[in-house]
Amino acid sequence: MLKNMLENVRKNCPLVHNITNYVTVNDCANIILACGASPIMADDENEVEEITTICGGLNINIGTLNKRTIASMLKAGKKANELNHPVVLDPVGAGASALRTETATKLLKEVKFSVIRGNISEIKTLALGSGTTKGVDADVADKVTEENLDEIIAFAKAFAAKTGAVIAITGAIDIVADAEKAYCIRNGHPMMSSITGTGCQLSAMTTAFVTANQDNPLEAAAAAVSAMGYAGEVAHTRLSEMDGNSSYRNYIIDAIYNMTPEMLENGAKYEVR
Amino acid sequence: MLKNMLENVRKNCPLVHNITNYVTVNDCANIILACGASPIMADDENEVEEITTICGGLNINIGTLNKRTIASMLKAGKKANELNHPVVLDPVGAGASALRTETATKLLKEVKFSVIRGNISEIKTLALGSGTTKGVDADVADKVTEENLDEIIAFAKAFAAKTGAVIAITGAIDIVADAEKAYCIRNGHPMMSSITGTGCQLSAMTTAFVTANQDNPLEAAAAAVSAMGYAGEVAHTRLSEMDGNSSYRNYIIDAIYNMTPEMLENGAKYEVR
Amino acid sequence: MLKNMLENVRKNCPLVHNITNYVTVNDCANIILACGASPIMADDENEVEEITTICGGLNINIGTLNKRTIASMLKAGKKANELNHPVVLDPVGAGASALRTETATKLLKEVKFSVIRGNISEIKTLALGSGTTKGVDADVADKVTEENLDEIIAFAKAFAAKTGAVIAITGAIDIVADAEKAYCIRNGHPMMSSITGTGCQLSAMTTAFVTANQDNPLEAAAAAVSAMGYAGEVAHTRLSEMDGNSSYRNYIIDAIYNMTPEMLENGAKYEVR
Repeated sequence: MLKNMLENVRKNCPLVHNITNYVTVNDCANIILACGASPIMADDENEVEEITTICGGLNINIGTLNKRTIASMLKAGKKANELNHPVVLDPVGAGASALRTETATKLLKEVKFSVIRGNISEIKTLALGSGTTKGVDADVADKVTEENLDEIIAFAKAFAAKTGAVIAITGAIDIVADAEKAYCIRNGHPMMSSITGTGCQLSAMTTAFVTANQDNPLEAAAAAVSAMGYAGEVAHTRLSEMDGNSSYRNYIIDAIYNMTPEMLENGAKYEVR
Repeated sequence: MLKNMLENVRKNCPLVHNITNYVTVNDCANIILACGASPIMADDENEVEEITTICGGLNINIGTLNKRTIASMLKAGKKANELNHPVVLDPVGAGASALRTETATKLLKEVKFSVIRGNISEIKTLALGSGTTKGVDADVADKVTEENLDEIIAFAKAFAAKTGAVIAITGAIDIVADAEKAYCIRNGHPMMSSITGTGCQLSAMTTAFVTANQDNPLEAAAAAVSAMGYAGEVAHTRLSEMDGNSSYRNYIIDAIYNMTPEMLENGAKYEVR
Repeated sequence: MLKNMLENVRKNCPLVHNITNYVTVNDCANIILACGASPIMADDENEVEEITTICGGLNINIGTLNKRTIASMLKAGKKANELNHPVVLDPVGAGASALRTETATKLLKEVKFSVIRGNISEIKTLALGSGTTKGVDADVADKVTEENLDEIIAFAKAFAAKTGAVIAITGAIDIVADAEKAYCIRNGHPMMSSITGTGCQLSAMTTAFVTANQDNPLEAAAAAVSAMGYAGEVAHTRLSEMDGNSSYRNYIIDAIYNMTPEMLENGAKYEVR
């Protein structure tokens, strides 16, 4: 049950090491705190191994990557693997530049991930080695719809089987799959795409969830994805006439802060395939 | 008409490449989304040319510049010029250190800008090669007033003629000028100066506007400047007794999100000289 | 009286140079503006001396430090010392990695600080040369309680005597001490620990306070600590049922913005020992 996943985050308060972009880093830290975990950001090559050692899980996000931080990502990822810490990859913009595609591919080769979370274009890029990601947004041609849903689920399961990671493809319909089983999640609100970093925030929160639920990365990731979408719904009900995307951003994090395990259990809309 | 400028942003949803400072980057991303465009931030030398190629316009902001990002700014700027993409310069703090003054001057020499937006001290520094910018704020001695307005307009037109860029000097009175024509804009609220990054946000949004209105950079920039100021007015009407600069920051971005082309047309206060 | 400390910030509007982490930098800038001062962020080795020269005070925060910025911190710190500008150190995560512990120790050796502000684990690490900081949070074993308060006050005074800096140890009970005298401050709200960066914000604001009150760093630091805690209390009274940590973050900065010297004087809860 999804509610246990959130309960365990609140009980265990995992410490999460983040190597993440400077655009959305503050929101990532606040959403990790909102769900009951604790964030630390550290990206210098000379400390990432030590920092990842004192943490329970590692979140690697390649937005605003650079030469210096790419080296740190690889080093931290390998160390976390050694220690059996869960590692989450957010391949922001894979497919939008060779540097991002190559870095994501290299990370995938050298680090074992518990969860890979991205939009459909980013995940396709990782699976196929090239892609047509539109900046940091999915290409419209790639969109997950009711029509291609079975096909995308099969793709996600196959990529999960190949990588050993839970694959989380998020968009209007979210798919969270391991090799055997997929959650199709229908939480969320279209207005979420008018905020920068809901994806980054979700990856950060997912790291907290899989760190607190190490025996069950699939359900943990599904719970995080569902919680984010449900928070988007709850936050949307609060919007006054003058509120826009900036207030909405705050309200989503607030909704995670106030979400009880029971609220998540009742609010989650998904089927398992 | 200014309203068409905003209409075109909402219709074309331009993708904007930002090389910008880490202080206000999140607000820049959210205001670009609020006006209907889409942001991507990327500053590594090995990807900036590719990222700028998939985007429609480029925003270069020199706040928190460093050796690594200066090289990226030059590379991205030249590539954008090759592709005829609009490029906006925000010379944050030019005049406050030699590094900033020299970097802004070098950018001006090697890259052709569609718009240069800064406070009066920053723009004077660019025009004269040195200045007395007080950190990231204009020097009081430079202040634009009703008394020196004609003189400043003449200065802005001359600098526009010299650089080929639209010059946007923002402050209590905003001046947006090309070589021939100047908009004097009287939107805004004094409390905007108690928020970090309203200038950075405006430069980011201006890039979206000029990218969506490439035939008309002067009116596009004037529309962005007016929209920002008007958003500051609208947001101010919402402030409750306990609200301060942090809520005000959110409300301004919200106001851009909710601004219709008609609202902008009616709310804009300007004369053309 | 604490109120004079805030009055002087509002009157003198000091310009504060910040070399700080990219996680909480935007909130640091906004809280500096909220208290009436003006921020500039600059971390390139080639401009930090010049930037610190035009400012009144310097805030060094080692969160997300890296090789490049460590060199800048040392350079800026020494220059500020030369100019007799107050310098504040926030040793974020000292004790969590060797890099952070060594950097903080090196800064302490080469730069004279007016104030050092951290949690108890970070300050113990600085005093003892090693520690057990839990990421960016204090180790539970180190917690300041009514039982060990006298002992911690003695420790703070001794460390103040050794370093010549005012020592600010913040947590449920805050201690601000020089060699002779300690303020025990009981402002604040437990929910403040669910927001990222209240510590960073406090260090930034403390720099503004000590810069505007150079003859009285002890009382200036105590006033900043008390203002932050009191803002946390005021902001908490505003929280609606759906508000969480993200709105709370905004409300705290808002509360600083709206805090008059008299409100601070009346709201401050402290004893001097």
